[in-house]
Amino acid sequence: MSYKNSNIVQVEKLSINKLKWIRNLHSKKFRDSEGFYIAEGEKILREIVAVDPSSINFIVCTKTTLEILENYSEFDLFIASPNEFERISLLKAPQGILLVLKSKISAVSSLNLTENILVLDNIQDPGNLGTILRTADWFGIKQVYCSKNTVECYNPRVVQASMGSLFRTNIIYGDLPEFLSQQKLPIYGAMLNGQSCYSQKIAKNAILIIGNEGNGISKEIIDLIQHPITIPGDGNGESLNVAVACGILLSHWVKS
Amino acid sequence: MSYKNSNIVQVEKLSINKLKWIRNLHSKKFRDSEGFYIAEGEKILREIVAVDPSSINFIVCTKTTLEILENYSEFDLFIASPNEFERISLLKAPQGILLVLKSKISAVSSLNLTENILVLDNIQDPGNLGTILRTADWFGIKQVYCSKNTVECYNPRVVQASMGSLFRTNIIYGDLPEFLSQQKLPIYGAMLNGQSCYSQKIAKNAILIIGNEGNGISKEIIDLIQHPITIPGDGNGESLNVAVACGILLSHWVKS
Repeated sequence: MSYKNSNIVQVEKLSINKLKWIRNLHSKKFRDSEGFYIAEGEKILREIVAVDPSSINFIVCTKTTLEILENYSEFDLFIASPNEFERISLLKAPQGILLVLKSKISAVSSLNLTENILVLDNIQDPGNLGTILRTADWFGIKQVYCSKNTVECYNPRVVQASMGSLFRTNIIYGDLPEFLSQQKLPIYGAMLNGQSCYSQKIAKNAILIIGNEGNGISKEIIDLIQHPITIPGDGNGESLNVAVACGILLSHWVKS
Repeated sequence: MSYKNSNIVQVEKLSINKLKWIRNLHSKKFRDSEGFYIAEGEKILREIVAVDPSSINFIVCTKTTLEILENYSEFDLFIASPNEFERISLLKAPQGILLVLKSKISAVSSLNLTENILVLDNIQDPGNLGTILRTADWFGIKQVYCSKNTVECYNPRVVQASMGSLFRTNIIYGDLPEFLSQQKLPIYGAMLNGQSCYSQKIAKNAILIIGNEGNGISKEIIDLIQHPITIPGDGNGESLNVAVACGILLSHWVKS
């Protein structure tokens, strides 16, 4: 199928300038200054269209994927050769659909301060952040407050690992000590020396803090935690992966 | 510090042949035929020495890490230049300690068939398998039976993600339908349409099956599951990461 035979009215060839601009979005600095980021694949396209189509700036496809895009004719579409597509894609096996999306990190004022807030303190691994967003979405946690030093949620590995949950979650980045000191909800924190999560329930409306992969919750906010909480182990394992630990605590929080 | 001043008696320069042999261990085929695999870093060294020092074939270090290795003088030690070390390391930021270990996948006969067995059906992502082994170890699950098409547990990313749990777990690879059809313990399987894990307990001694990342549990063994079990969600998330789902179910299994 050639794109000349396509039913899509608007399909332009990807220009060299646009290709370079997209490649620049691979870097965090450029994403920050431009206010756009990249997501890839048909599944993510479907999810963002369902939740927040206005954040799609434009879409890049190849001859092979053009047919799929005929169902999305309301968006600006550019076509790239397989070689060009490989240069803009961040995947090892590019899927031929790349979205350029508007960044939409929320302001603190958008938070509902009487409902559950998951707080992330210095999460560094993009795969972990993406998996945590995916898990929070599963359990209906709609608000995630990240410390300033938490990995950027528009990092391509976060976008990919979050499986669309990024678009459905209200994500805030800000000054964690300042934010926590002003909150009225009870504050729980995942720690090694807290009360067992099997004997202590997490309140229906609360704040739960998950700390850094290696170092846990940072010193600056330890004193603000009213309820340290622990997942006790039975074996010899030294620790749990942070996304797994978060999943277990979210399960207890929402379901117990 | 020069290695000539070292207190270690046995420290040989890494030969080109040995370097090439280690590089070949980067491939699964060669690992399979040779019966050895690679692990890296001081932390893993400490863990394997604590659990199973006899599986260490030899260790490679650099001038910078030689001092650390003085505490492990019972093992054969080879020293590599930074350039050589980069060629044998699989890490982006090599840590200067590389272990060559004997593969020790267990036989089915080593299983205690009256105790908890975690069964993995076609887990494909090495990070997921490593994280699952780490979580099982945390909750004291000592036996993991993997279907033949599950990713190799000596894949370097599995070794790294398991954080030493690989060495403390009895791991078997085999014919899953045949194995399951012979078991007397109750068989639970993580499925989308099972009974809620919040209303159904998993028996104290049981088999729990976790399926593939995208496709779940394979058709061949569905009929052998007596208790399908589900983690119900509250939000819009389409699915949970398999290692997170496994963590939540293991928490319920061992602690409820």
